[in-house]
Amino acid sequence: MAMDQFEFYRSSEHEHLQQLSVDCVIFGYQDQKLTVLIPKLDLIGDVWALPGGFIRQTESIDEAALRILASRTGINAIYLEQFRVFGETERSSRKLLDRLLRLNPGLAEQVALSPEGYEWITRRFVSIGYYALVDMRKVILKKQEFDASIDWYPVQELPELILDHQEMVTHALETLRLHIDRQLVGFNLLPEKFTMRELRELYEAVFDRPFARNNFQKKMLDLGVLERLEKKFTGAANRAPFLYRFAR
Amino acid sequence: MAMDQFEFYRSSEHEHLQQLSVDCVIFGYQDQKLTVLIPKLDLIGDVWALPGGFIRQTESIDEAALRILASRTGINAIYLEQFRVFGETERSSRKLLDRLLRLNPGLAEQVALSPEGYEWITRRFVSIGYYALVDMRKVILKKQEFDASIDWYPVQELPELILDHQEMVTHALETLRLHIDRQLVGFNLLPEKFTMRELRELYEAVFDRPFARNNFQKKMLDLGVLERLEKKFTGAANRAPFLYRFAR
Repeated sequence: MAMDQFEFYRSSEHEHLQQLSVDCVIFGYQDQKLTVLIPKLDLIGDVWALPGGFIRQTESIDEAALRILASRTGINAIYLEQFRVFGETERSSRKLLDRLLRLNPGLAEQVALSPEGYEWITRRFVSIGYYALVDMRKVILKKQEFDASIDWYPVQELPELILDHQEMVTHALETLRLHIDRQLVGFNLLPEKFTMRELRELYEAVFDRPFARNNFQKKMLDLGVLERLEKKFTGAANRAPFLYRFAR
Repeated sequence: MAMDQFEFYRSSEHEHLQQLSVDCVIFGYQDQKLTVLIPKLDLIGDVWALPGGFIRQTESIDEAALRILASRTGINAIYLEQFRVFGETERSSRKLLDRLLRLNPGLAEQVALSPEGYEWITRRFVSIGYYALVDMRKVILKKQEFDASIDWYPVQELPELILDHQEMVTHALETLRLHIDRQLVGFNLLPEKFTMRELRELYEAVFDRPFARNNFQKKMLDLGVLERLEKKFTGAANRAPFLYRFAR
């Protein structure tokens, strides 16, 4: 952990709402797999955490979530939605920081660490969970100051996450499943034009189960939101599948 | 507004999370109407607000919501669920308190009001919205210390609410409509045994539109969660409607 990080914590207490944070579950989709963006923190030992941060007094909670997302992905225009608040009394980073200082006794001195300097970030934190859907091809992964690395992981194969972050992913996935069915948000994970098979594979990745081909096609067409595009006449026997797009 | 209220605010700052509150949209159902529980505050002029409160450092956010509900309704075992966080930068009670002090110049002096004493409650507040479903027949309405009165209002005929509380009700109603369809939470608003007609009337109240009788019955029976109870043999021609209950 860089000295800079403690300096940031020390100097920014009054710029932020106290005991309230935002954590983001950023979903992508590639090679028929639903993925989640996870930074590995630049701490002693391997520590993975959802991208998160504090809320500035001068920004709304949605603006804080957008800022956190943009800082890791370089993009703004993404689907972003609150899904749940995590507010148990024992939610705190105190143990994590204590472990860090125990593992590296020189650290406290190096950074002239006083309890007052970082006490505010070790208090109980209530965290607002946001989930985002992004087009992975448009994302430019950006390590933040305190990241050792940042990568996409299949949602079923995440590294061990700090605090209740695994529970956050589970809740975000449940919400995604509800919303993909009701509000058709899944189109944010597909290219503009897609085949019925590609759409079905997305649903299979999100729900982690197979969908029968004919039933799925009927269900999707019955929704009345898919526009079937004309095939181009090539002169050859035209065996290419139909392309669809979402009629917004 | 009682002196007690300011005293409460002054003395309890450090017992509570700062700049974070809970507001509750408590739904009831009676006479084919969906209703919301709204206290009228004991302020100068008519001020209606959702039941809400602060979060103690020693309780989870869910516990805070349960405490707030129980304090107004006298019941614990109710359906209660977060639905959205409201976190715009301008969310604050400052204007309301300023108006109050302006209307009653003696008040500040009476309560020995110092800016430090109540500054924390006039800062920006992020509020976590919960919605609850209660059986109105089991509720014993309880005015809290700062309530002038407390009553049920039809959801379409609410008094003018403070801050963004009307928006909170609108979002809560949207969530209820989603959940009644997906998670069948509506049964919390009905007695244990009900007729198909009573169930349909509940849906009509929640969605504020008629449902065709036959379609509705088919849709509900297709869900496979309703248990039809045997009619008692009375000897008379049995024209009473079937009763159903929810098979949990």
